[in-house]
Amino acid sequence: MEISQRAQNMPQSPIRKLAKYADAAKLNGTKVYHLNIGQPDIATPKCALEAVQGFRPEVLDYSPSQGLKSLRTKMVSYYANYGIDLSPDEIIITSGGSEAIMFAYMACLNPGDEIIVTDPSYANYMAFAISCGAVVKSVKTHIEDGFKLPPVEEFEKQITDKTRAILICNPNNPTGYLYTKQEMRQIRDLVKKYDLYLFSDEVYREFIYTKRPYISACHLEGIEENVILVDSVSKRYSECGIRIGALITKNKQVRQAVMKFCQARLSPPLFGQVVAEASLSTPEEYMEEVYDEYLARRNFLIDQLNQIPGVFAPTPMGAFYVMVKLPIDDAEKFCTWCLTDFSYEGQTVMMAPGTGFYTDPNEGRDQVRMAYVLKKEELAKAMVVLRKALEEYNELGKKI
Amino acid sequence: MEISQRAQNMPQSPIRKLAKYADAAKLNGTKVYHLNIGQPDIATPKCALEAVQGFRPEVLDYSPSQGLKSLRTKMVSYYANYGIDLSPDEIIITSGGSEAIMFAYMACLNPGDEIIVTDPSYANYMAFAISCGAVVKSVKTHIEDGFKLPPVEEFEKQITDKTRAILICNPNNPTGYLYTKQEMRQIRDLVKKYDLYLFSDEVYREFIYTKRPYISACHLEGIEENVILVDSVSKRYSECGIRIGALITKNKQVRQAVMKFCQARLSPPLFGQVVAEASLSTPEEYMEEVYDEYLARRNFLIDQLNQIPGVFAPTPMGAFYVMVKLPIDDAEKFCTWCLTDFSYEGQTVMMAPGTGFYTDPNEGRDQVRMAYVLKKEELAKAMVVLRKALEEYNELGKKI
Repeated sequence: MEISQRAQNMPQSPIRKLAKYADAAKLNGTKVYHLNIGQPDIATPKCALEAVQGFRPEVLDYSPSQGLKSLRTKMVSYYANYGIDLSPDEIIITSGGSEAIMFAYMACLNPGDEIIVTDPSYANYMAFAISCGAVVKSVKTHIEDGFKLPPVEEFEKQITDKTRAILICNPNNPTGYLYTKQEMRQIRDLVKKYDLYLFSDEVYREFIYTKRPYISACHLEGIEENVILVDSVSKRYSECGIRIGALITKNKQVRQAVMKFCQARLSPPLFGQVVAEASLSTPEEYMEEVYDEYLARRNFLIDQLNQIPGVFAPTPMGAFYVMVKLPIDDAEKFCTWCLTDFSYEGQTVMMAPGTGFYTDPNEGRDQVRMAYVLKKEELAKAMVVLRKALEEYNELGKKI
Repeated sequence: MEISQRAQNMPQSPIRKLAKYADAAKLNGTKVYHLNIGQPDIATPKCALEAVQGFRPEVLDYSPSQGLKSLRTKMVSYYANYGIDLSPDEIIITSGGSEAIMFAYMACLNPGDEIIVTDPSYANYMAFAISCGAVVKSVKTHIEDGFKLPPVEEFEKQITDKTRAILICNPNNPTGYLYTKQEMRQIRDLVKKYDLYLFSDEVYREFIYTKRPYISACHLEGIEENVILVDSVSKRYSECGIRIGALITKNKQVRQAVMKFCQARLSPPLFGQVVAEASLSTPEEYMEEVYDEYLARRNFLIDQLNQIPGVFAPTPMGAFYVMVKLPIDDAEKFCTWCLTDFSYEGQTVMMAPGTGFYTDPNEGRDQVRMAYVLKKEELAKAMVVLRKALEEYNELGKKI
């Protein structure tokens, strides 16, 4: 009776693995600033919360495996606003973006098949690959130049006869990078040349802080059948808990394959779908306010971080994360220490160790990922605490 | 660009694969009696629905990957009533029982590992095995003797050095069989002898219609570390749509492995957990009424079925399904025909073809699974329609 090899290989989520230490710190009365997880403090739109109050069926029954038709129909209009032309049939509702990634892998990748991601990447892309027996190859991006995409030749070098897909996240979690039109075209050419799938996670499209245009994988001409779009309402409407995402593709064969996995798990969550459908009617003003708020937080946080000695944080162009270089020996050790052995005026910070976002465990050891999902006043306090933590940690290091 | 082998191998759910034909029939104005899916028409408990109305957070945020502590704590009392002694830590909340099965496989089975199920079985046990690369071996049970468990030697014959687990469903979906104390002890001895996992799906424990006692896998002494209990609130409280289940085990190593998969998918659905927690306070009277209702339906349906010429339906001891032998050549063909080419006074029936519940596609060709989740009056009408359908179908057969 042993644990499966896949379970042994699965990394613990860098976002959640330190949760037990944070819980213990809180029990001790320490205030913990959560910069570790993309859990916004922004209020969910009123229309979404009210929809639940108005939803009063007698029986909470299964919804269709593909998701409620009314939700999928409304999503068509949402995408049309971004110049993405879809029919409700091309949209499959999933339990969060997570399930969309998992089902894309399950439907398209055989054990041993390779998928190329940029490094650093959202940690769960790697975790789901292990679940499916797929192999992750990576193209390195670097904090020094803001994680910009390396020349397309670097991708090409990673391509073997086992390569089945390229996975991009745009705007990027964890780096905040936004792909240029030229970069997207290069990826398109590569996808076409080698007949690969292009998995594109675009859950942060509402959060782009530069004048650069948003280029969806769905805008790329000539690879319509290759693209699988992964989406989620979690971040857009600050409703991570409802677990509603989507897998979208023009490729009918892929949809049929994905639907088999959908049918096996019966249906996506019912209340979540009701909330998501109502959320699509969120007023423009809400979205603008949220945008302004994140922009202000980003500007404030990056400025504050770069004022701390030895710290470097490139300015993210989108999403609400930043990879930060700290003057430390080991991010996991430091992040744990902040929760277990440090506090400043009854406060501490929780961050996600950078190593968990790299395919090579030796990289990102002096980096952490922060999410700017707290109010500016909280971020200000967190930065004071971080500065003190770094001082104290490095003083200790000298003593040992 | 191809679909994965696993997707190609995945069966379509026998419960859902004919849905498109049913939709078309409904569009044509035909009333379809849904006997295909375990979607009860019973009203969800009021306390569960009211809990949603009373749940008014500002932000719909992630819940813990393991599920809300308050829900897990309340579940401890529920299980104590069944003589199952647990702590909240031993309970992991999942997106339906489906995810619990998937995570049990993921954590315990390597590709190529074997798992033994009874045949016929809940179709998705096979589907999830394909997702994970596991191999399903089966021990045959037979409609003639009410699907009773064959001698334990039949299990032993299936055991190889790749066998990792036995999976039982008790009371059984699709057969309604309930394991005797002696059968459970034999399974225990086998699990112990070969050091296997015992996956036990017990979501129908509230629906047992014989005087035979309910023996949970968790009652078996000496294999506490081997047992993984799969559970769900879907059927118990008629709330299939909320997608809340649980994976329960005393085995800490398994829990740690499962938690890695839980963290990758972030969290189970928030509203579902609120509903499930409230449901655990459902008054006794509700459960008694529901029980009486299913018992009456079972008695009525089985009696009606066995009066139709050429039909045989053994009396299920639990759950709310029955495998029925029909005088037909091919269940899938017949079930499809009922939806596409037949109606009687503007009505037809939807049933799940029996073949989908067998590991061998040549078995169950003259069987269908019915769920008695409709009111007696509806069941009565459905039986009239079924009788007519069988007559007409077999008349047609003679003509061709």
